[in-house]
Amino acid sequence: MELRPLGDKVVVKAITEETTTSGIVLPDTAKDKSQKGRVVAVGSGRLLENGTRVPLEVRAHDVVLFEPGSGVKVKLGDEEYLLLREADVLAVVQ
Amino acid sequence: MELRPLGDKVVVKAITEETTTSGIVLPDTAKDKSQKGRVVAVGSGRLLENGTRVPLEVRAHDVVLFEPGSGVKVKLGDEEYLLLREADVLAVVQ
Amino acid sequence: MELRPLGDKVVVKAITEETTTSGIVLPDTAKDKSQKGRVVAVGSGRLLENGTRVPLEVRAHDVVLFEPGSGVKVKLGDEEYLLLREADVLAVVQ
Amino acid sequence: MELRPLGDKVVVKAITEETTTSGIVLPDTAKDKSQKGRVVAVGSGRLLENGTRVPLEVRAHDVVLFEPGSGVKVKLGDEEYLLLREADVLAVVQ
Amino acid sequence: MELRPLGDKVVVKAITEETTTSGIVLPDTAKDKSQKGRVVAVGSGRLLENGTRVPLEVRAHDVVLFEPGSGVKVKLGDEEYLLLREADVLAVVQ
Amino acid sequence: MELRPLGDKVVVKAITEETTTSGIVLPDTAKDKSQKGRVVAVGSGRLLENGTRVPLEVRAHDVVLFEPGSGVKVKLGDEEYLLLREADVLAVVQ
Amino acid sequence: MELRPLGDKVVVKAITEETTTSGIVLPDTAKDKSQKGRVVAVGSGRLLENGTRVPLEVRAHDVVLFEPGSGVKVKLGDEEYLLLREADVLAVVQ
Repeated sequence: MELRPLGDKVVVKAITEETTTSGIVLPDTAKDKSQKGRVVAVGSGRLLENGTRVPLEVRAHDVVLFEPGSGVKVKLGDEEYLLLREADVLAVVQ
Repeated sequence: MELRPLGDKVVVKAITEETTTSGIVLPDTAKDKSQKGRVVAVGSGRLLENGTRVPLEVRAHDVVLFEPGSGVKVKLGDEEYLLLREADVLAVVQ
Repeated sequence: MELRPLGDKVVVKAITEETTTSGIVLPDTAKDKSQKGRVVAVGSGRLLENGTRVPLEVRAHDVVLFEPGSGVKVKLGDEEYLLLREADVLAVVQ
Repeated sequence: MELRPLGDKVVVKAITEETTTSGIVLPDTAKDKSQKGRVVAVGSGRLLENGTRVPLEVRAHDVVLFEPGSGVKVKLGDEEYLLLREADVLAVVQ
Repeated sequence: MELRPLGDKVVVKAITEETTTSGIVLPDTAKDKSQKGRVVAVGSGRLLENGTRVPLEVRAHDVVLFEPGSGVKVKLGDEEYLLLREADVLAVVQ
Repeated sequence: MELRPLGDKVVVKAITEETTTSGIVLPDTAKDKSQKGRVVAVGSGRLLENGTRVPLEVRAHDVVLFEPGSGVKVKLGDEEYLLLREADVLAVVQ
Repeated sequence: MELRPLGDKVVVKAITEETTTSGIVLPDTAKDKSQKGRVVAVGSGRLLENGTRVPLEVRAHDVVLFEPGSGVKVKLGDEEYLLLREADVLAVVQ
C-alpha cells in the first residue's frame, strides 16, 4: 500500500529519537514533539497562479526538520505517517 | 441521481473501517473520524487568475486520504456523501 | 418582479423536503438546514484580476447542493430566495 | 449637494417598506433591516491589479438588494444615504 | 511645516459641524464621530503588483466623506490632521 | 556599527518631543506614544510579484510620521532604534 | 551534520549577549528575548507567483536582527538553531 501526495504535500515518517546522545531515554511527552522525519513521497509540485507547477525542493529519502505540530497524521496498515505541506518543512538535514 | 461537483470540489464516499485488522469492531466515535474515502465525482478543475482551468489531480474511483473534519456532508436519497475541496485531499492511496 | 444577481452570485429557491421517503414530516428545525435548491438566476460571472469575466458553472433551472447556512435570504413579494456566491454552491444534482 | 463615490463604491438611498402588501405597518426594528435601495451614484469602477478599471455592474436609478448591515451611513443635509462596496450589492431588482 | 503622505495615503483636516442647520450646538461625543473633511495633501498613488502607480481619485481641497473611526490622528504644531488610506475615503462631496 | 534594513523596512530614530511649545514637560506615558522620527537607513525596496524591486518613497534623513505602536524596537550599543515596514510610515514632514 | 533551509528560510545561530557593556550579567529571562544572530545557511530564495526564485538578501556569516519571538527552534546534536523566514529578519548589522 503506497501514498501519492497531492500538489505541494509530502509524506513523512517521523523520526523519534528515543535515546539521546548521552544514552538517556526521553519521556513520552518529549517524544511527541518530534520535528524530524524521513520523506517517503512527494507531491507533483506547487501550482502557481500562472499555471506552471514547480517541483518541490525535497525528495524521497531526505531527512527533514519540520514545524512541530504541523501536518496531519494518517495511518496506513500498521504504519503512521505525517502529511505535511512543503511550507511546513523548514530544512533538509545533510 | 448523480452529482456534478463545481470547480475544485470532489464528491467522496467515506470508507469507514468498522472492523480492525485484529477483528475488533470500533466504537461509533472512532468511526466518525474517517479520513479515507473513494472519489465518486470530480469538478471541472481549479480556476486560475489567468483564466485557465487546471484539471484536478484526483479521479473518480481513487481511494484518497483527506483532512479529518473537512468538507460538507450531503445526503442524496439514502446515501451520504462528503463534498471536499481538492486542497483538503492529502494523498491518493495506491 | 425579477432579480439579476451581480458577478459571481446566484439566486436560488430553496427546496425544503417536508416529507421524507418514509412519509414522516420533518420538524421545523430540520427544515431550516436545507442545502438543496433550484437556481432561478445567475450573475454575469466571476471577474478575474486580468479583467476577463468567467461565466458561472451553474445555470437557471439547475438543482444544486450548497453549503448549509451560506448566503443571504431576500424576500420579493411573497417569495423568499437565497442569494449565494457560486463558491458556496457545491454540486449540481443531475 | 452631490456625492461622487470612489472606486467600487456606490451611494444608495434605502427603501424602507413601511407598509406591507396586506397594509400592516411594520415596527421600527423590522424597518431597520432594510436590504433594498435605489442607487443614487456609482464610483469610477474597480481597479484591477493589471491597472485597468472595470465599470460597476449597477447604474444610477437601479433598485438593488444588498447585504443587510453592510455599508456606512452618511448624512448630507437632511438626507441619509448608504455607502456600499459593489461586492455588498447582491442583485438588481428588475 | 508640511506633510507629504506616502503611497495611497491622504492627509485630511476633519470638518466638525459644531452647529446644526437648526442652530443647535452638538455635544462633544457627537462631534467626535466626524466623517467629513477637507483633503490637504495626497500620496503618490497606489502601487500595483505590476509596478505601475495609480494616481489617487481625490485631490487637495476636495471635501470627502470617510469611514468613521478610520485613519490615524497626527498633530503638527497646533493643528490636528487625519491620515487615511484612500480605501477609507467613501465619496467626494461636490 | 551600522544597520542595513531588508526589503521594505526602514530604520527610524524616534523623535521624542519632551518639551511642548508652551514649555511644559510631558509625562513619560505621553512620550511613549511617539509617532515622529528621523529615517536612519532604508531597505532595498519592496519586491513585487513580477520580480521587480520598487525603491522606497522615504530616504535617510527624512523626518516621518508613523503609525503609533508599529514596528520593532532594536538596541545597538547605547542607541535604540525602531524598525518599521514602509507601509507603517504615514507621511514625510517637509 | 548540516542544514539546507528551504525557500525563503534561513538558519540562524542566536547571539546571546550575556554581559552588558557595563559588565552586568543579564538574568535568564532577558537572555531569552534575543533578537540578534549569525546566519548559518540560507534557502534557495523566495518563489514568486511568476515562477522565478529571488535570492535572499542575507548571506551566511551576516549578523542580523530579527523579530523577537519569531521562528522555530531546532536542535542538531548539541547545538540549537533558529529557523526564520526572511520576512522575520529586520536588518543586517554591518
